Amino acid sequence: MNANLAPGDTPPPLAAPGSKRPGGRTARTRAAVREAVLTGLSEQGYQGLTVEYVAEHSGVHKTTLYRRWGGLEGLVADALDLAGEEGWSPPDTGTLEGDLRALARETAQALTGGGAESAGPTALIAAAFTSARAADALRAFYTERFERGEAVVRRGVERGEVPADTDAGALVRAVTAPLFLRLFITREPVDNRLADQSASAAFAAARAGAYTN
Amino acid sequence: MNANLAPGDTPPPLAAPGSKRPGGRTARTRAAVREAVLTGLSEQGYQGLTVEYVAEHSGVHKTTLYRRWGGLEGLVADALDLAGEEGWSPPDTGTLEGDLRALARETAQALTGGGAESAGPTALIAAAFTSARAADALRAFYTERFERGEAVVRRGVERGEVPADTDAGALVRAVTAPLFLRLFITREPVDNRLADQSASAAFAAARAGAYTN
Repeated sequence: MNANLAPGDTPPPLAAPGSKRPGGRTARTRAAVREAVLTGLSEQGYQGLTVEYVAEHSGVHKTTLYRRWGGLEGLVADALDLAGEEGWSPPDTGTLEGDLRALARETAQALTGGGAESAGPTALIAAAFTSARAADALRAFYTERFERGEAVVRRGVERGEVPADTDAGALVRAVTAPLFLRLFITREPVDNRLADQSASAAFAAARAGAYTN
Repeated sequence: MNANLAPGDTPPPLAAPGSKRPGGRTARTRAAVREAVLTGLSEQGYQGLTVEYVAEHSGVHKTTLYRRWGGLEGLVADALDLAGEEGWSPPDTGTLEGDLRALARETAQALTGGGAESAGPTALIAAAFTSARAADALRAFYTERFERGEAVVRRGVERGEVPADTDAGALVRAVTAPLFLRLFITREPVDNRLADQSASAAFAAARAGAYTN
């Protein structure tokens, strides 16, 4: 997939999408395409989203979309910022408990916000029940997200806040799992109090060594 | 909803569905109807499920289904064992950590089993993304399930294993949340090791007072 190419460019190998000429034609095109994908996901769901829809709503020709994004999966992956240069960074408050709390609050706010930030993931979560392709895209998205999030645990280990062999992946998942459970499974309300409780509980468990391997 | 009535019976008020003449015509009818509902949910999803489908696959007349179950919501609620006399009871191993561990393993096994036990909840979880009615049924199902599960926390409080003001609802949700997250959101594998880790972590957090209000 040569996601970073404006038509006519020569493909550089493995460059980050949109990394060329920021603010120029590539960046504008990519922004329009991503917005069309996210709008499409929230309006049509993953099942209803087509390259034709994205072409129509972004003003970018279908053949360009196929050439640059490879198809629907590439478009969705890019829209979810899987490989983007404007990638998400986890919080860095100076303490692990503070970071976990910020992570939980940020997740709660992003997923309940209703904008593009929640539309993409929500549509993919729904689609993954019936589409293996959507399930793969979702797994890739969250694998990458949680891997980035693990940085907060590594810093906590360096500061001696939790045991050195703490399972960072399990810990960052445990912090946000109660939020996902209520939002997408039990359909119960989520608020900052719950986010704080979840973060404090996961931190207490990690301190007690419950996440060591 | 008079779910316990065979055609021609006089409705007793608020009796549990199927509680009359166990093993008799009522029990057989109810079992056939529930099986048809669960098969329908796993084959058609909630959106595709109709009272007509249940009538056809159970051999019970549509008017009987409407009279006894009130309609699709009542059929699904009954199939999910919301009000059944064969209701689920939480584990009772003698210790809170043991109970939480059993709860986590049981949840993992039920949701990955692929049979009727997972088909109903999975279909409803998927349907809740597009159907408010399914979301309501799902919320009711899990509210009731977790309420029953809270018994293990109350017993743990009585034994002095966790603080008296432990938020039992938050604790039983935290135990299973990492399983639901991986199965339905991040689409990652789930096993007994994860179930044990999740239970031990939630227990450690509860002991440390992280779930007190």
